[in-house]
Amino acid sequence: MLVNVLCLSLVGELWIKHLTMDSKEVKIFQAGRFIRTDLTLNVVNPYDQSFIATVYLASKKELETAISEAEGVKVKLKRMPAYERYNILMYISRQLEVQRDDFAHILMLESGKPLKYAVGEINRSIQTFAVAAEEARRLPRESLSLDWTPAGKQKEGLVRYFPNGLVAGIAPFNFPMNLAVHKIAPAIAAGCPIILKPSSKTPLSTLKLAKIIAETNLPAGAISILPMDRETGNQLVTDHRFALLSFTGSPEVGWKMKSEAGKKKVVLELGGNAGVIVSDSADIKTSVSKCVGGAFSYSGQVCIHAQRLFVQHSVFEEFTKHFIQVTRQLQNGNPASSETDISSMIDEENALRVERWVNEAVQAGARILTGGQRQGSYHPPTVLTDTRSDMKVCHREIFGPVVTLEPYETFDDAIKQINNTRYGLQVGVFTNKIDEMNRAFDQIEVGGVIVNDVPTFRVDHMPYGGIKDSGLGREGLKYAIYDMMEARILVKDF
Amino acid sequence: MLVNVLCLSLVGELWIKHLTMDSKEVKIFQAGRFIRTDLTLNVVNPYDQSFIATVYLASKKELETAISEAEGVKVKLKRMPAYERYNILMYISRQLEVQRDDFAHILMLESGKPLKYAVGEINRSIQTFAVAAEEARRLPRESLSLDWTPAGKQKEGLVRYFPNGLVAGIAPFNFPMNLAVHKIAPAIAAGCPIILKPSSKTPLSTLKLAKIIAETNLPAGAISILPMDRETGNQLVTDHRFALLSFTGSPEVGWKMKSEAGKKKVVLELGGNAGVIVSDSADIKTSVSKCVGGAFSYSGQVCIHAQRLFVQHSVFEEFTKHFIQVTRQLQNGNPASSETDISSMIDEENALRVERWVNEAVQAGARILTGGQRQGSYHPPTVLTDTRSDMKVCHREIFGPVVTLEPYETFDDAIKQINNTRYGLQVGVFTNKIDEMNRAFDQIEVGGVIVNDVPTFRVDHMPYGGIKDSGLGREGLKYAIYDMMEARILVKDF
Amino acid sequence: MLVNVLCLSLVGELWIKHLTMDSKEVKIFQAGRFIRTDLTLNVVNPYDQSFIATVYLASKKELETAISEAEGVKVKLKRMPAYERYNILMYISRQLEVQRDDFAHILMLESGKPLKYAVGEINRSIQTFAVAAEEARRLPRESLSLDWTPAGKQKEGLVRYFPNGLVAGIAPFNFPMNLAVHKIAPAIAAGCPIILKPSSKTPLSTLKLAKIIAETNLPAGAISILPMDRETGNQLVTDHRFALLSFTGSPEVGWKMKSEAGKKKVVLELGGNAGVIVSDSADIKTSVSKCVGGAFSYSGQVCIHAQRLFVQHSVFEEFTKHFIQVTRQLQNGNPASSETDISSMIDEENALRVERWVNEAVQAGARILTGGQRQGSYHPPTVLTDTRSDMKVCHREIFGPVVTLEPYETFDDAIKQINNTRYGLQVGVFTNKIDEMNRAFDQIEVGGVIVNDVPTFRVDHMPYGGIKDSGLGREGLKYAIYDMMEARILVKDF
Amino acid sequence: MLVNVLCLSLVGELWIKHLTMDSKEVKIFQAGRFIRTDLTLNVVNPYDQSFIATVYLASKKELETAISEAEGVKVKLKRMPAYERYNILMYISRQLEVQRDDFAHILMLESGKPLKYAVGEINRSIQTFAVAAEEARRLPRESLSLDWTPAGKQKEGLVRYFPNGLVAGIAPFNFPMNLAVHKIAPAIAAGCPIILKPSSKTPLSTLKLAKIIAETNLPAGAISILPMDRETGNQLVTDHRFALLSFTGSPEVGWKMKSEAGKKKVVLELGGNAGVIVSDSADIKTSVSKCVGGAFSYSGQVCIHAQRLFVQHSVFEEFTKHFIQVTRQLQNGNPASSETDISSMIDEENALRVERWVNEAVQAGARILTGGQRQGSYHPPTVLTDTRSDMKVCHREIFGPVVTLEPYETFDDAIKQINNTRYGLQVGVFTNKIDEMNRAFDQIEVGGVIVNDVPTFRVDHMPYGGIKDSGLGREGLKYAIYDMMEARILVKDF
Repeated sequence: MLVNVLCLSLVGELWIKHLTMDSKEVKIFQAGRFIRTDLTLNVVNPYDQSFIATVYLASKKELETAISEAEGVKVKLKRMPAYERYNILMYISRQLEVQRDDFAHILMLESGKPLKYAVGEINRSIQTFAVAAEEARRLPRESLSLDWTPAGKQKEGLVRYFPNGLVAGIAPFNFPMNLAVHKIAPAIAAGCPIILKPSSKTPLSTLKLAKIIAETNLPAGAISILPMDRETGNQLVTDHRFALLSFTGSPEVGWKMKSEAGKKKVVLELGGNAGVIVSDSADIKTSVSKCVGGAFSYSGQVCIHAQRLFVQHSVFEEFTKHFIQVTRQLQNGNPASSETDISSMIDEENALRVERWVNEAVQAGARILTGGQRQGSYHPPTVLTDTRSDMKVCHREIFGPVVTLEPYETFDDAIKQINNTRYGLQVGVFTNKIDEMNRAFDQIEVGGVIVNDVPTFRVDHMPYGGIKDSGLGREGLKYAIYDMMEARILVKDF
Repeated sequence: MLVNVLCLSLVGELWIKHLTMDSKEVKIFQAGRFIRTDLTLNVVNPYDQSFIATVYLASKKELETAISEAEGVKVKLKRMPAYERYNILMYISRQLEVQRDDFAHILMLESGKPLKYAVGEINRSIQTFAVAAEEARRLPRESLSLDWTPAGKQKEGLVRYFPNGLVAGIAPFNFPMNLAVHKIAPAIAAGCPIILKPSSKTPLSTLKLAKIIAETNLPAGAISILPMDRETGNQLVTDHRFALLSFTGSPEVGWKMKSEAGKKKVVLELGGNAGVIVSDSADIKTSVSKCVGGAFSYSGQVCIHAQRLFVQHSVFEEFTKHFIQVTRQLQNGNPASSETDISSMIDEENALRVERWVNEAVQAGARILTGGQRQGSYHPPTVLTDTRSDMKVCHREIFGPVVTLEPYETFDDAIKQINNTRYGLQVGVFTNKIDEMNRAFDQIEVGGVIVNDVPTFRVDHMPYGGIKDSGLGREGLKYAIYDMMEARILVKDF
Repeated sequence: MLVNVLCLSLVGELWIKHLTMDSKEVKIFQAGRFIRTDLTLNVVNPYDQSFIATVYLASKKELETAISEAEGVKVKLKRMPAYERYNILMYISRQLEVQRDDFAHILMLESGKPLKYAVGEINRSIQTFAVAAEEARRLPRESLSLDWTPAGKQKEGLVRYFPNGLVAGIAPFNFPMNLAVHKIAPAIAAGCPIILKPSSKTPLSTLKLAKIIAETNLPAGAISILPMDRETGNQLVTDHRFALLSFTGSPEVGWKMKSEAGKKKVVLELGGNAGVIVSDSADIKTSVSKCVGGAFSYSGQVCIHAQRLFVQHSVFEEFTKHFIQVTRQLQNGNPASSETDISSMIDEENALRVERWVNEAVQAGARILTGGQRQGSYHPPTVLTDTRSDMKVCHREIFGPVVTLEPYETFDDAIKQINNTRYGLQVGVFTNKIDEMNRAFDQIEVGGVIVNDVPTFRVDHMPYGGIKDSGLGREGLKYAIYDMMEARILVKDF
Repeated sequence: MLVNVLCLSLVGELWIKHLTMDSKEVKIFQAGRFIRTDLTLNVVNPYDQSFIATVYLASKKELETAISEAEGVKVKLKRMPAYERYNILMYISRQLEVQRDDFAHILMLESGKPLKYAVGEINRSIQTFAVAAEEARRLPRESLSLDWTPAGKQKEGLVRYFPNGLVAGIAPFNFPMNLAVHKIAPAIAAGCPIILKPSSKTPLSTLKLAKIIAETNLPAGAISILPMDRETGNQLVTDHRFALLSFTGSPEVGWKMKSEAGKKKVVLELGGNAGVIVSDSADIKTSVSKCVGGAFSYSGQVCIHAQRLFVQHSVFEEFTKHFIQVTRQLQNGNPASSETDISSMIDEENALRVERWVNEAVQAGARILTGGQRQGSYHPPTVLTDTRSDMKVCHREIFGPVVTLEPYETFDDAIKQINNTRYGLQVGVFTNKIDEMNRAFDQIEVGGVIVNDVPTFRVDHMPYGGIKDSGLGREGLKYAIYDMMEARILVKDF
């Protein structure tokens, strides 16, 4: 049985009525209005390629309107009292709770994510909005004494943080809802207008969210959710009217954007090839169960997917045996079923890439401990061993249901192998030894060291983000809000 | 008499023995060693063009050594306990205190800064190191409960901040000592190695500081102070081994660097055309006295120089009369004299530029209330009125001893004029009205609103920096340290 | 028209259906059970002395059971994860919102508080629970570096705060709901069991609250709400099993309790004779309107009732004229009417005391500017002038609808008069001058200086409490929670 | 060789010139003056009963003058800018550093504390003043948004903390210097005048400190250091002019004071019978070495003396063997020798009491593993086993060089035994298991859980203090300062 590490269910309920979309035509959300444009796109179910809906794409013209209306509400948003921001964010959170099943269903359809993970993602978004509501009452502020030298005698400072302007948000397909919410919710809390570009593969859940947003008394220009083609979307990067670009996606795209971003601030939430260390002091059963979850949930299409497992040699055999056994129990099937653990990848192109990397590894000497044949966009959960760090399955972000499993001698060796990558997002360390925990925290070059859990662990208010090539900056409401604001000090006599 | 707003004298003593440099040849500081190179540069006294010393310039080769040695001490610096960082920083602070007069003298010679301001700057550097010492014991850390949803049950987070690697610092000529110290001191506190490029005009005081640094038990690679030509210096911007670029200088150069900086973080402390509002509720005598200081200290070669004065119409005449009177009392002369208020600018090129901008303004309708003839690199303190916002003396950073003085009707008008610029560093607001203070803080687009003092006000631990085109990020020890560190969360059961 | 300073209506709706109590017999809440006892008490409407309900009183026996069951759930409460505490507190908050009208009606009946104020109090309790929910996720925690000397090398500290045990809460009649909630809500957030003694005059609203509490999954022993006679109640003070006594009530009673409290911590929220300063820079109309509210809402039966008004002599006449005029417009009548501004005091005994103090003042030279004849427990709003600080209406807490109105010459005089009392809760200062605001904050000996509003101002998350004889400690969720917890440091290697 | 856990040597230097006191007559420090009185007391060396000096005692009259002068400087102290507080505290810290040897010598003489511990204590006091200096720049302040409900719209709060008045400090004999400094230094930082009563046995080091204090520009009334007899000293408890009583000493005295303290705040730093757990995952050699230090340094006359050792049964024998061996190596002798590890207790009365308790334990079945004959005030280091929790050596604070050493089966058993006491100061837990660390922190009822070190561990800026009968409140600069200050909120529009 798969331990569901990502599914932060508030109620635990997984039954979903089988909805159809309200309509087969989905308008996009431009500054408070739902509009049609001249460009359309068909969204399909990755599982069976069935048509879900036609969605519109924004062109330069629609984007321009969204930008100029966003500019127009900046002062109004800045002045919005905390209780209004709170009320808006809590309203959205509660409505999401009410409509949880509908949202999970659409999310499952557009992303191919098994239903229980889809419910988990909606639950997380409910929480992300609720935490943002609380943070809207706790925007950064600071009071400072300034009389540390005679020059500051009788003076004090009050630092308030003001919204720094229009935010450009770009969200990926893998958590189409919650990773968009990690940009929208802090923008509302901070008082910044935002234009969000969802992934063209998965725009439906955020456009459904737009309906709830439209019911609040946010000024119309505050939020736009606009699917765009890449060329139009590039204006989010280059247009000087955006004060901040917040991008979640692939490292290559992200770093390029940074160099084209002009004067604006840039936050990058990119990917990696996260590792796990299992020490012989850990509980094997628990670590196997959690690692299988970290490796294969949503077919590994997760930035903090557990890709590289290093197990202490003395327990390697036992761990491996159990790991394979639990992996083989994963239920493959239609994501719409609440029994399904693993389903199709987002598209066949990606499944083909994963297959290619696995084959390359095998040709270079790796062994497949469990796996199977790719079928269309479905790639079975695959475990490799005898890998080397120069194989793509090791040193690149696989973003698929593949893990490598290798023994290590000493904990220092394990750390060295974990660090042997240009990425640094999170790491899981299973151990009951204080000194191993301390060394892991001190020496592993990542944004998060997760003890006795998988790197895939994330709760929405914790600081989350990578170092090295995995990103720049942190999300997690308070941290994202901080990046969306600008310090201003008032110096006065007292 | 000029109120010395910048001179944060800890002891008030201004007498200076007339030193000569220890030697006419000044070696540069490469990773703990004082070295000669193949390139030299003559440093001259801006007041009389007399030769002060020959200094060496680093070439690519010397820079490369500095970088690789810096890389080599990263782990050692990261592990250095707080008490060692504290002891090193306090040692430097105390030695600066002991050698205050010598430092002030050299600073005066290389920059042409009147002696009392030079002493003030050294006093500030003493404080900057002392505050950094304290902050080294208070590096950012955070403890978080994670059990906000069932997913985080029995888990807690500890966020520690680790040094994010090698820092490139670029310092300007106008505060050659303290603005370099605002990069060096936080780097030591944070545990980052740093390579600092001082201005080629004023490298002597920081190279003298290097002698104190060399006496501490910082590992050799931790600090390099390397004058360089612009081409060599550009490697500080582009080399991917630097994790952070911290630049203080002109807006044009700064923003260009940001686009060339690759994956590294960038902090920019740039300039502006800071304004002042004088309301009729303010004390006129005090505000005149402070404004003259803010306008003409170090010939206005200060990022937060008070350039644009707006005075409520009902007190405009009285303010203007006093302002001119006090301005005319400023003592012009050799910076080596403790009587001197104003002396030469950094070079004739800049004095010529200021003269040209003043002439352009006059031709376009401005009137000179007091001023005089430029002589070489000396430009007399100049007050203009009847200016328009499209004149260079208004909308560009004059970086010279020139202010514009204009009346305003309503406080809202004054705010509008203050904001009518692409810069936003600091503003001074003289008022005794609560509502004017509040509106200024809420509406003026700057990094700092200084009530009843000039925009030129700065104490070293306050958050300092600009918005709009005036910069990105904040200095002020705690804030600079934060930028030099990277969050890492430890998630564990409790 | 009376500005309602206390009524923090979230929805602004004041219409109330005329409820009768569910039952004329009200059981008390002992460790999760609603019980009868051998002692009863009749609660009557202070307005017309009509019978509302019979309530039971706890004897030693019932109290003993409550204490021992509370002791029994301490570990369970300590371990309760944040999300459960949050869910419980938010559930109560939302249920209060749903039942707002019913709660307001009962509160009005038992306290004689005019309906609009009763609604305001319930609205505040909704907020008090919601803020406590948020604080339950943010219980105090601290991470410390310890390596400030070699003794602490490689060590770090984690400070967590643990619930410090059983809390005894004693609440007064004047805000029977919200001042009880200020003890119950933080206790739930902190994880402390609590036994609350409501005022015998007004136990009904908190006992109705108990019904909501009983629906949550708090362990049964966590909360008891037990009306008691004074002798039984004294055990809350002396019994060593209580770790904290939190008392809101009169100074005399409070300070005596402190000396009898043994080893437990004591928090005292007592009363005062709060003052107001109105400077000639203030807006007269606004200050009159707010001051009338601060003086007469709930007949001045408010700890931070505006009792002593000092008005700058130049505007004294104008202020006085308006103040009398607005005071005379107050609607007197049945508290059940939403038109009523002022109604009966809590009982005739108190009305008689107020009448006596007013008469004494008049005999000693004071003049009545407006007032009238007491009728039963109704005392009309009364304004006195020509008072002296040794009159009871000045130096004691009047807790009735009486204010003194006196002119002052200089702001320093006004401060001196405000400080001339053994109390120090809050003060209101109406001014537009920065220097007056600063002097007031620096020199007035109180827990809160309220600029441009009455001392009666309170929002529920701000730190609230008095100095001098007005109390010990602060309430306001975060602060109350802090007092209910105990620091424990974990020192470990890193 | 004894690991010196308390000796936080900054320089490591232990050589001391053999000083005599400056004078055999020591005046006491009354509000800035050194005075004689009518009462005297002879201070003797506990080691050989030799006369050290005659010191004066304050009577009611001298105390009265000290109190009224302290009252007179309250406003002046409150207004003292941060840089002056900082300069005063740093001056004292540096002078202590300069005179370290002299201070250590006097401390050794009056307390009988072996020289190396005396040096360690002075080093700590140097640090305590330096940290207080830093905290004087960081006095508690808070900026709050208040617009969480419409009632707070456009309002913000600034919370500043003001000194709460005159502090009464009572210090014990065992750390005559540093525990007095833990009251004096925060009082200076907070801006509170303080009257300190040192122990009559050990008043000399603090009176020597007074000489340094007198050289600063603290106003004269700010500090008094007055030895007194118990009756006079009782006024520190009862006099209402003291706002805070800060007592370090025995539990019996402390809790009695609380009940007599009237309206003032009370902080109690009392004793305990601290325990240690040694798990089989710990390094035995290190834990033995540290435990011997924690047990016998300064003959166990330490509030956090390691009194009760519980060792996991599997390593009990090995631990015991080493423990006895290292204990027997302790050098007994003249405290003036830097070789001495253990010397006389403070007086014969205490040595007799310890002897009596050990004898009682033996008669009740305990066995002495190592020990020996008391000689005068010297009691040899003694290790007992086969003890029971109802023996005085277990359940009372022995405050002498005696430890009990017992095996335990499970970690839960060990926790149960550690908790089986009415005290709760600190505990040491030697383990390398994460789960044991977590359970210890969660379940052991103390103020501090010290992992892999003895309960005797303390660095001066950490929060330190007990729960249960071991005290009330925390010291550790920041925490002590907080207790000496009173919150005041400024509510204003923004």
